[in-house]
Amino acid sequence: MDKVNLEEKFGKFQDHWHPRIVGELNGQQVKLAKFKGDFIWHKHEEEDEMFFVVKGTFTMQFRDKTVEVKENEFLIVPKGVEHRPSAKEEVQVMLFEPATTLHTGNQKSELSRDQLEFI
Amino acid sequence: MDKVNLEEKFGKFQDHWHPRIVGELNGQQVKLAKFKGDFIWHKHEEEDEMFFVVKGTFTMQFRDKTVEVKENEFLIVPKGVEHRPSAKEEVQVMLFEPATTLHTGNQKSELSRDQLEFI
Repeated sequence: MDKVNLEEKFGKFQDHWHPRIVGELNGQQVKLAKFKGDFIWHKHEEEDEMFFVVKGTFTMQFRDKTVEVKENEFLIVPKGVEHRPSAKEEVQVMLFEPATTLHTGNQKSELSRDQLEFI
Repeated sequence: MDKVNLEEKFGKFQDHWHPRIVGELNGQQVKLAKFKGDFIWHKHEEEDEMFFVVKGTFTMQFRDKTVEVKENEFLIVPKGVEHRPSAKEEVQVMLFEPATTLHTGNQKSELSRDQLEFI
């Protein structure tokens, strides 16, 4: 029951596309990640995923549209929907998703991280 | 798959201790609320609850300690733990909890809101 300060946690890592776990509730995890550049196209068959922008801006590409998500905005990507996040400049994102979610979804990639740390 | 802007949503209501729903994922809901003054002591028997401060500061009282939660900080209250939020000045909070959660938990109160709107 200690609070979590996002700035402090974001200061603990520098690499991109590598989420860290900062909280757990009701079988869901709260993760922090820094995005920069292009991620891969992927989807999550069984899991909805939420992206909340703490600092900066990123774009989420869907097959039929692109959404720009800015600071203090969030986007929920429903299960089964292909998506691809990109960021021209580094962006700090807080993610909410089930504890079972792999961030590259149905795609195995060099960007995949199977074991995420709790920081 | 439209983004949600928190400032825009917080602009849609003014009352305190009356959460609005702004998103749903994996059986959980994302809610926004404005706190000011003292809430009631309560607990949720089966549900963990997360409080993320968007703007301002509030304090969460537990039976054995008090935690001050500021902007860009969050606190997860585990199920079964009695708690009581208070705020001297108005604070904007984003909540994550199961769709089944009543904000007054095990307590029926004049502050209880059974039917929350999706805004």
